[in-house]
Amino acid sequence: MSDVDQYLQQHGPRFEEELCDLLRIPSVSADSTHKADVRRAGEWVAGQFRGLGFKTEICETPGHPIVYAESLGVPGAPTVLVYGHYDVQPPDPLNEWKTPPFEPTRRDGNLYARGATDDKGQMFTHIKSAEAWIKTAGKLPINVKYLIEGEEEVGSEHLEHFIATNKDRLKSDVVVISDTSQFAAGVPAITYGLRGIAYFELKLTGPKQDLHSGSFGGAVTNPAIALSKMLAALIDADGRIQVPGFYDDVTTLTDEERKQFAALPFDEAGFKKQIGVDAVTGEQGFTTQERKSARPTFDINGLTSGYQGEGAKTVLPARASAKFSFRLVPKQDPKKIQAALEAQLKKLCPPGIRLELVSHHGAPGVVVPLDSPYVAAAARAIEHGFGRAPVYMREGGSIPVVSTFRQQLGVDTLLLGWGLDDDNTHSPNEKFCLADFHRGIRTSAHLWKELAAVKS
Amino acid sequence: MSDVDQYLQQHGPRFEEELCDLLRIPSVSADSTHKADVRRAGEWVAGQFRGLGFKTEICETPGHPIVYAESLGVPGAPTVLVYGHYDVQPPDPLNEWKTPPFEPTRRDGNLYARGATDDKGQMFTHIKSAEAWIKTAGKLPINVKYLIEGEEEVGSEHLEHFIATNKDRLKSDVVVISDTSQFAAGVPAITYGLRGIAYFELKLTGPKQDLHSGSFGGAVTNPAIALSKMLAALIDADGRIQVPGFYDDVTTLTDEERKQFAALPFDEAGFKKQIGVDAVTGEQGFTTQERKSARPTFDINGLTSGYQGEGAKTVLPARASAKFSFRLVPKQDPKKIQAALEAQLKKLCPPGIRLELVSHHGAPGVVVPLDSPYVAAAARAIEHGFGRAPVYMREGGSIPVVSTFRQQLGVDTLLLGWGLDDDNTHSPNEKFCLADFHRGIRTSAHLWKELAAVKS
Repeated sequence: MSDVDQYLQQHGPRFEEELCDLLRIPSVSADSTHKADVRRAGEWVAGQFRGLGFKTEICETPGHPIVYAESLGVPGAPTVLVYGHYDVQPPDPLNEWKTPPFEPTRRDGNLYARGATDDKGQMFTHIKSAEAWIKTAGKLPINVKYLIEGEEEVGSEHLEHFIATNKDRLKSDVVVISDTSQFAAGVPAITYGLRGIAYFELKLTGPKQDLHSGSFGGAVTNPAIALSKMLAALIDADGRIQVPGFYDDVTTLTDEERKQFAALPFDEAGFKKQIGVDAVTGEQGFTTQERKSARPTFDINGLTSGYQGEGAKTVLPARASAKFSFRLVPKQDPKKIQAALEAQLKKLCPPGIRLELVSHHGAPGVVVPLDSPYVAAAARAIEHGFGRAPVYMREGGSIPVVSTFRQQLGVDTLLLGWGLDDDNTHSPNEKFCLADFHRGIRTSAHLWKELAAVKS
Repeated sequence: MSDVDQYLQQHGPRFEEELCDLLRIPSVSADSTHKADVRRAGEWVAGQFRGLGFKTEICETPGHPIVYAESLGVPGAPTVLVYGHYDVQPPDPLNEWKTPPFEPTRRDGNLYARGATDDKGQMFTHIKSAEAWIKTAGKLPINVKYLIEGEEEVGSEHLEHFIATNKDRLKSDVVVISDTSQFAAGVPAITYGLRGIAYFELKLTGPKQDLHSGSFGGAVTNPAIALSKMLAALIDADGRIQVPGFYDDVTTLTDEERKQFAALPFDEAGFKKQIGVDAVTGEQGFTTQERKSARPTFDINGLTSGYQGEGAKTVLPARASAKFSFRLVPKQDPKKIQAALEAQLKKLCPPGIRLELVSHHGAPGVVVPLDSPYVAAAARAIEHGFGRAPVYMREGGSIPVVSTFRQQLGVDTLLLGWGLDDDNTHSPNEKFCLADFHRGIRTSAHLWKELAAVKS
């Protein structure tokens, strides 16, 4: 491994430059005006695999393409499937970025750009680690398959179909994903639980067009008031979600799990300072760690109605809408939640208002077993790369594909995150710590060897 | 009067063209990018008065200028003060206009443009009626003063100071304002009551920037949820406003008043069809007519938070804000309402949220006495102009200056509206019925003679 490690050290600066090239492509999958940019990012990734001599294909979908590549030159060794995504979240609000989102900028040892950690930077570590093996040992010590998609930030709409219709091609012993975080700076982690998600948009329509609030106010249901009342009714003062049946399938946290959460080196004062709030809040009876990773939640993601310009406009708006989402814990079924929500919203909708509920995407939560030889192998690789054994944690975000891999391919996923909690993923000024980028590549390079040693 | 009437008939088409010139100026007072346009509209109006030989002045204010003009050539005759405004509401949402808001377009006997009725078109009728007298009789039969401002749509911020410091100049026997509506098409009205207004913007801030709703959701107060809950708490299911003391100064409607409301020729089915709702709603225990003109109300005018673009973004927004307003009835004090609201919002604000309440503008409601000789004179003029005696009604909108005139100058106001309820004021596709434009000019021309005959 010393050749590999030396190669990584020597070529590190070039790896950063290559990552910057990818980060300059505004591959915003949610925004149809960026359709060509998303494809360009996919082609860039495919070019990397071709450069390593991998069998590479850009697989078309009705949406953005999937990049698939494989190197199967080690008969008898296990096969690892690496999943990642080359699309990014929208950069809004643009005016809050210190430097433009698609002009990667180094500051204080970090690289700032949309997608720096989520997921271009993290995904790229598993490509550069492969390069190091090929350029030094001539080949990888293990069989690898890469599945890099362009629709993760819009709900991976066409991924499940692709996996279901390519089961043989994707057959593998274990999946590796780097799209999560370390527990804290210098505290690497293996994430063994993820929340699911059910994301909706509620559109209310009242009068057929905006009205003068003086002449009509008081006699017509105001859609923005109806929206406020309906949303307010979805969660009570104790932070409990008010959709009938919502908690039916929520597993109670065991004493053992709660002890583990309490044992994590979490600094609540630092957490509050990091995000700039003077109080943490949430569901009564649970700690911040439990609330943000192991309990289901309700969040409003966007509100739109009426006049939003400068000054005052005395309008009674024709429409009001909200984007909102529930984070789900394992065993909660997004489809069941959607049906219960729809029934509840219909009940809450006042006279004079027409309701439309759009489902943007849904995915169940997942918990992966910790007692596997692959987890032990990953822990050893992390110790090599980060100089410290990982902690084991659950993460509040969602990576829907993890449960798809379990269901369709029968394999578990290693969630090995190089990011940090304050990386501003999905927010302005997203960043990736450059030292962690290089530690991630080193860990990945060791991971290929450690996984190869597992008896399959 | 036959000379005057003949002149009006002959020059009617030119009056329409002149009005179109004024409507082409996008004098949106709320939008600072239109500052120069607002001034241009004021100068255009001043040019009209200069053309009639009136003593004319463009009076500067810290905001948009006030146009003042007078013609005092009839010693012994009463003096009438005409108030109007040359600024307009913002045209948003632009994509709902059938033809552009600042390209006046004739369709089905109507003239479509922002400001067509509110208030450029209506205000202009009192200029053209003066022209007809001057061009035929050589002079007006009465003394006139015109006060035409450019900040009505943003709360007339500098008007009260102007009136208070120009009391002698503005001294008059009666005020005339045409900025209201007929009761219905072909049913002209004298409006004797107006609602007041208190308009606010509530800005909530949670975390210092947008967060990933997966990683942080559940552990931090979501400002958009806080906003929904606070707004929802301001009005109950019976349409009663939940601000302590809000109804303290609300006068109970008398049986006589309720009988008058019930006697108005109001078509509720037609009203629902006009605005496109399948149900009318509002404060329990009151009729639609009472709700929209004689009862106080709460309306949300705008909502803003988080991601409002296409598709889904899993963001926990840093901020959420709402523009909202109360319509007030006479005797309710906007300042008292503001203080009570502020206290209530502070009480409702959850931990983890910082609150800012901006007061955009406030004005009390007003009721003017019906038993005056000026009202009788106006009724006769309307019969000449519209061929039918007016009904007497209260209007739900606010014209704050009416109570200022009462307080500062000690005079009452004649509210003579030529508009219609479906003119889409403050909404896309604002219009003015061209026949009513001409009827308004004719009524105004007769009004000068009728008012001149009142013994002061």
